[in-house]
Amino acid sequence: MEDLTQRAQILTEALPYIRQFFGRKIVIKYGGAAMVEEHLKEAVIADIVLLHYVGMRPIVVHGGGPEVSALMKRLGKEPEFVRGLRVTDAETMEIAEMVLSGRINKDIVSRLNRLGGRAVGLSGKDANLILVERLREHQGEPVDLGYVGVVQEIHSELLELLVREGYIPVISSLGVDRAGLSYNINADHVAGQLAAAVEAAKLLLLTDVRGILADPKDPDSLLSTLTVPEVCQLLTSGAISAGMIPKVEGCLYALEGGVERVHIIDGRIPHALLMEIFTDRGIGTMITVERREV
Amino acid sequence: MEDLTQRAQILTEALPYIRQFFGRKIVIKYGGAAMVEEHLKEAVIADIVLLHYVGMRPIVVHGGGPEVSALMKRLGKEPEFVRGLRVTDAETMEIAEMVLSGRINKDIVSRLNRLGGRAVGLSGKDANLILVERLREHQGEPVDLGYVGVVQEIHSELLELLVREGYIPVISSLGVDRAGLSYNINADHVAGQLAAAVEAAKLLLLTDVRGILADPKDPDSLLSTLTVPEVCQLLTSGAISAGMIPKVEGCLYALEGGVERVHIIDGRIPHALLMEIFTDRGIGTMITVERREV
Amino acid sequence: MEDLTQRAQILTEALPYIRQFFGRKIVIKYGGAAMVEEHLKEAVIADIVLLHYVGMRPIVVHGGGPEVSALMKRLGKEPEFVRGLRVTDAETMEIAEMVLSGRINKDIVSRLNRLGGRAVGLSGKDANLILVERLREHQGEPVDLGYVGVVQEIHSELLELLVREGYIPVISSLGVDRAGLSYNINADHVAGQLAAAVEAAKLLLLTDVRGILADPKDPDSLLSTLTVPEVCQLLTSGAISAGMIPKVEGCLYALEGGVERVHIIDGRIPHALLMEIFTDRGIGTMITVERREV
Amino acid sequence: MEDLTQRAQILTEALPYIRQFFGRKIVIKYGGAAMVEEHLKEAVIADIVLLHYVGMRPIVVHGGGPEVSALMKRLGKEPEFVRGLRVTDAETMEIAEMVLSGRINKDIVSRLNRLGGRAVGLSGKDANLILVERLREHQGEPVDLGYVGVVQEIHSELLELLVREGYIPVISSLGVDRAGLSYNINADHVAGQLAAAVEAAKLLLLTDVRGILADPKDPDSLLSTLTVPEVCQLLTSGAISAGMIPKVEGCLYALEGGVERVHIIDGRIPHALLMEIFTDRGIGTMITVERREV
Amino acid sequence: MEDLTQRAQILTEALPYIRQFFGRKIVIKYGGAAMVEEHLKEAVIADIVLLHYVGMRPIVVHGGGPEVSALMKRLGKEPEFVRGLRVTDAETMEIAEMVLSGRINKDIVSRLNRLGGRAVGLSGKDANLILVERLREHQGEPVDLGYVGVVQEIHSELLELLVREGYIPVISSLGVDRAGLSYNINADHVAGQLAAAVEAAKLLLLTDVRGILADPKDPDSLLSTLTVPEVCQLLTSGAISAGMIPKVEGCLYALEGGVERVHIIDGRIPHALLMEIFTDRGIGTMITVERREV
Amino acid sequence: MEDLTQRAQILTEALPYIRQFFGRKIVIKYGGAAMVEEHLKEAVIADIVLLHYVGMRPIVVHGGGPEVSALMKRLGKEPEFVRGLRVTDAETMEIAEMVLSGRINKDIVSRLNRLGGRAVGLSGKDANLILVERLREHQGEPVDLGYVGVVQEIHSELLELLVREGYIPVISSLGVDRAGLSYNINADHVAGQLAAAVEAAKLLLLTDVRGILADPKDPDSLLSTLTVPEVCQLLTSGAISAGMIPKVEGCLYALEGGVERVHIIDGRIPHALLMEIFTDRGIGTMITVERREV
Repeated sequence: MEDLTQRAQILTEALPYIRQFFGRKIVIKYGGAAMVEEHLKEAVIADIVLLHYVGMRPIVVHGGGPEVSALMKRLGKEPEFVRGLRVTDAETMEIAEMVLSGRINKDIVSRLNRLGGRAVGLSGKDANLILVERLREHQGEPVDLGYVGVVQEIHSELLELLVREGYIPVISSLGVDRAGLSYNINADHVAGQLAAAVEAAKLLLLTDVRGILADPKDPDSLLSTLTVPEVCQLLTSGAISAGMIPKVEGCLYALEGGVERVHIIDGRIPHALLMEIFTDRGIGTMITVERREV
Repeated sequence: MEDLTQRAQILTEALPYIRQFFGRKIVIKYGGAAMVEEHLKEAVIADIVLLHYVGMRPIVVHGGGPEVSALMKRLGKEPEFVRGLRVTDAETMEIAEMVLSGRINKDIVSRLNRLGGRAVGLSGKDANLILVERLREHQGEPVDLGYVGVVQEIHSELLELLVREGYIPVISSLGVDRAGLSYNINADHVAGQLAAAVEAAKLLLLTDVRGILADPKDPDSLLSTLTVPEVCQLLTSGAISAGMIPKVEGCLYALEGGVERVHIIDGRIPHALLMEIFTDRGIGTMITVERREV
Repeated sequence: MEDLTQRAQILTEALPYIRQFFGRKIVIKYGGAAMVEEHLKEAVIADIVLLHYVGMRPIVVHGGGPEVSALMKRLGKEPEFVRGLRVTDAETMEIAEMVLSGRINKDIVSRLNRLGGRAVGLSGKDANLILVERLREHQGEPVDLGYVGVVQEIHSELLELLVREGYIPVISSLGVDRAGLSYNINADHVAGQLAAAVEAAKLLLLTDVRGILADPKDPDSLLSTLTVPEVCQLLTSGAISAGMIPKVEGCLYALEGGVERVHIIDGRIPHALLMEIFTDRGIGTMITVERREV
Repeated sequence: MEDLTQRAQILTEALPYIRQFFGRKIVIKYGGAAMVEEHLKEAVIADIVLLHYVGMRPIVVHGGGPEVSALMKRLGKEPEFVRGLRVTDAETMEIAEMVLSGRINKDIVSRLNRLGGRAVGLSGKDANLILVERLREHQGEPVDLGYVGVVQEIHSELLELLVREGYIPVISSLGVDRAGLSYNINADHVAGQLAAAVEAAKLLLLTDVRGILADPKDPDSLLSTLTVPEVCQLLTSGAISAGMIPKVEGCLYALEGGVERVHIIDGRIPHALLMEIFTDRGIGTMITVERREV
Repeated sequence: MEDLTQRAQILTEALPYIRQFFGRKIVIKYGGAAMVEEHLKEAVIADIVLLHYVGMRPIVVHGGGPEVSALMKRLGKEPEFVRGLRVTDAETMEIAEMVLSGRINKDIVSRLNRLGGRAVGLSGKDANLILVERLREHQGEPVDLGYVGVVQEIHSELLELLVREGYIPVISSLGVDRAGLSYNINADHVAGQLAAAVEAAKLLLLTDVRGILADPKDPDSLLSTLTVPEVCQLLTSGAISAGMIPKVEGCLYALEGGVERVHIIDGRIPHALLMEIFTDRGIGTMITVERREV
Repeated sequence: MEDLTQRAQILTEALPYIRQFFGRKIVIKYGGAAMVEEHLKEAVIADIVLLHYVGMRPIVVHGGGPEVSALMKRLGKEPEFVRGLRVTDAETMEIAEMVLSGRINKDIVSRLNRLGGRAVGLSGKDANLILVERLREHQGEPVDLGYVGVVQEIHSELLELLVREGYIPVISSLGVDRAGLSYNINADHVAGQLAAAVEAAKLLLLTDVRGILADPKDPDSLLSTLTVPEVCQLLTSGAISAGMIPKVEGCLYALEGGVERVHIIDGRIPHALLMEIFTDRGIGTMITVERREV
């Protein structure tokens, strides 16, 4: 009975959080360890289905770089990166599309559905969801990396329809240009821009670190809350690690687009999504436009 | 962190139950100790709002006999009962209506609203929700107890409208006859008949005992599950206590009307509603049409 | 046959008025003699149901001061007033709520329903319809009268829903504060503010006088039409009787909120509502923002 | 004031009738003197608009034989009848269509609109409303009268749409065959069949007599109520005058199709429509499937 | 097979035009030879039904001057014109109404329906579609031509309803004034003003010439595209033929009201409507607000 | 001009076919040469977009066996077949999913979108569209081919939603079992079963032969129309070639499920889809439940 009482107690304590995000869209960038280790996968999937059932409207965005590289190697092709961006010739693009839209996307979809989640897998090509242009410049310098794109427009009508009708969209980070060609795009950026386009209440990025660290070498130096100016300063000062930069950029896209709060959280902790949403204190790093007293 | 993990764990374990009753109506007969003691009240209210937010559609039915008697006494009128039924002259009826629809109903409503619940208080008179006739017979003998009614028809369109639009109806157990006169009706009966009329998934009756007991004198003789034939036999054999009889009758109304499961639970336990809904084992006594393997 | 002809004639003459208010909301403040004498009650109820059936959308607001005082006295409590406002301690509030929401409200509802009107009784607590704050100042001076409130916000979504679906809302003049506590509020004020909130075409206040009188002592000095500036001048000059002041204030709330015409009419005349709505000349006092040629 | 009181009284007495037919369709066959004399026209039009505004859904069907004959004569063509049916060659059909759909129909429409009625004029050709076949047999004998049709199908979707959106359909009694050719059809028959197709609550036929008479020569021998068997017997016995036969047939079509009550009333009395609908006693002859105690 | 291939080829080539006007309203002024010669009639009707089925929303406006004159003559009345406008006394108006709304309108309707088009015939009197005032001035001089009107207001709700529900409205060019009187109005003007009121994508006027000619005497001097300033200059310089003037005015009404493109095309060519809509080059004269590179 | 006339002529001749299938669903099994050769691909895509724009509701189903085998070989895995069915171990399944859902599906989607088609790519896993069980028996004998499934249930709500909102669903022939595992399924079977589930008006299978041949070796022995009994007899007699068998089975699934007509057509002919739909004679083999006179 004691156990039942505690269980009821915890459910009741979730009420204010459920109420706060009832009917609101939550964009989740899924990636890293949480997409690799089986027990973490199951926990993330369960969390998303739970958010869906308690009245929130989760939208999942995923990439899958390591799996793309793995298939490339099996096909005798060496992955090549220029300042963190994958050089993407036509064959690489084809491989990326098969891995992202064919394997990873549909795997997430069927895991969500098995728990009762009515998920629908999409790529940026479906209903022209993500319209891109070829990347011509990166970090201030001209580049040509092939089929690497930057987001031009998000056409979110299909997402709005699916979400309104009770489906969970799962989106692979591929875009299409006006000629119908496919492009690789950064999943963190896509997540941020989608969150802005659908007026999400929150953007949550699952990473393999504890959050943004004051000292990248010291995992205990977690910065729990940051404002946009503070983040910009950290970016300028070079204090953000290379791997974290696109995540921070995704966050800034979302915040500029009107999303109130974005969170970089540690996907290595089981149920990190629920911990973030169902507690005041939260976990990882929260970024807001400006500091507010809670 | 351990605490967070456990919290997330428990939330995740609630998923199958949330899924099972998503979008389904749950009729709750609210009464007894749970309507008197402040800490129990708060727990019941929080439970109902939580059910509402996780996608169920609670409908609350309440009586309030002790409060009616208390006001009668303050006004110098002695409550009088015949075989458990209140003798209800015009003045008593007026007092009952003020207490039930004026005080208790609106108190439940504002408590639900304070926790975010969008509740609307109704009596059986609103939109002719509960149409009654004067009670002419009781336990096989003719009676005339004044304004004591038996339910003839439930007009549930207003309930369906409110529930569909996201409101929580709270209904005081008063009915109206075709001439527009008010009648006192048994709240357990009303709850059972309403549950049938709105095609509820469940009926939950909050009582001040552990459930139906094999031996009414032995609180440890709880019968966890019963079928309709078993309940009828218990009724016939006189094994059901007088106070429990109308509750059991309310359950039978619901089961006959197509409600799958009805539960008599112990309202003295905080969060008894959640415990019943969010566990396999349940608490109290569950009655079904026939025994099923789970 | 002559009688039939005249009857048809009169029905036909009603057409322009029916057309004018077709689909428009009409807020009716119900009170005074019309809420006490049986033959007047029946006439008012019939009038409201008729307005409903000819395509208008009546919304009824009522108080019930005398009945509250009567029950207080029966319970050994002496009503006390400070400059026309009832001193309202917790017990008084409880009594008021029982009388207004329990007895009077449900009585109006069942009378309307008996004539075919699909009425639903509400108080300001249902769906947080009327959000109030404690009254801290009255007529320019600080006061503390207990649970006496002033309207802060009207949340009219529930009213709009009910009216759109063909119900007649009947509202008792009680409000709720953010903590869920009940407050007594002036029914004339509530009627005026509700009329503004729902964008009513008309506000009609039933009183026990012929209207606003040029000379309060001379019942033949009725002022048939007044503009807001004229009313304000009468208020300033002290020409308005104490009992009429809250009514006039209710009218001003409505006019400021965009209601085109408000009428103070004599509820002692049977069918005063119909007479006002179905004739050009009208009865009682009409107040408009400015004088217009008809 | 006395006058106002009486006016209010009469309006109130109309309530039960308004309630009874609220939202129900009423098919009115308009013709005879009521379509000729100006003061009768105005009264009929006002009645229809009033029915519309008090929540009923009038549908008007009209013919116009005399006007067709008049134009034929002006164009040097002699009208010719065979057992009451107009011999209709192509030219006659063209003239009939111009008179019925061009002049009479649009005149009724603009009169209704001038009183606020939102009328829309249609013929049986619009949206294939009335599909006919050429009449091959009449009163048991083969005939060929040219473009004279019998109703095969009523396609009432357009009527249902217009009525639901608050328009008053006005229909000229012309039909169309599958080849797109126009046909003259009896307006009484059309009215009866339309009433059945739209599931009207009532069919009202305006005539130039008091109703069905026991003795066609004695205007005081009015039969106020008849059942279908009684009417059939009268038809068989030859007691129904030739001019009344198609009206009675129209009534029978409606009654067979499920319309509860049909009325043959005297269009020479101003406001005969209102008198019929807004009184218990009614005027003219009412025919029902079987006799019922009221 | 070759034939099939070509057929498929041509259908495929229609795709961009279908896509461009999908769901858009197209107002067609129907008149001239195309309304007289049988094979042209059939081609126009087929074109309109095709436009309807490929997702456009055609609205047809027609006049019928020659037929009106013909009936007048048969009735012994000499048609009389003042500067191109018909002198319209009450009798002429009645004749015009019968011809336009009774004969021509219903003929177009049944032809469209025979091809599967769900057409509904209306005049400007139905639902007060076209509200007019008596023409008091023409070409800068005062005139009194009787029942000749100028459009004051278009009430297009009924058109919007019909079009949305899949009907093809066919409108005869008659208007009604506030007193309910009928007026003759120029059909080209009506078409232009209707096109503006319903926010049509295109206005197409069928004429009996090739389009606007640089030299009215030289049919080979067709001006394929013109801008509003160019048209105005042509009007001022007297280069537009008298018969073409009202058409040009209709075009200007549409362009001022926001219609993007208007076309004056040669109704003597079978399927001129399709040729205009389904080719880049178009036929006849297109007028736009300003010249644009395509 | 002659060319324009012919073009208009052909468009007009398409009308009866457009009308016939307006708003009806058409399931297209896309495969074979039409999915390989660029000019055929473009023609099929254009045809589908055209069907969509003229008001039909195309749903595309595709397989992609040769491409799966090609990738298998590149990854050093030899494709293996047992009586025409691919032996599918876990790795093969993964490859198939990447090729079908990742590459082919999204390629069709972006081609349709480039022509204006609003396509959405799905697999049988999305929203549990195609629920399968492992194949245990084939041609009467027990088999175990690994992840090869047979369709158990089609959950077509998502398809209905997308089609109603104007999207073109493109479905790769993969299914999911209750445990969330992926299965290879025959695309012809899926097309047939989907056509039945969505109550399609037609099923069209694109093949690389002219249709069903009386003599498989003689391409001129095309059977233009067949009934179900005739097809069954051909199957029994072994007259159907091995490659054609699953196509014929798909057809039978559709016909049994209520689809009126199914067509096996030659995808090597450009615009074969349009030729079939827009002509009476059709191309390829049409199968119906029974022979009907047209």
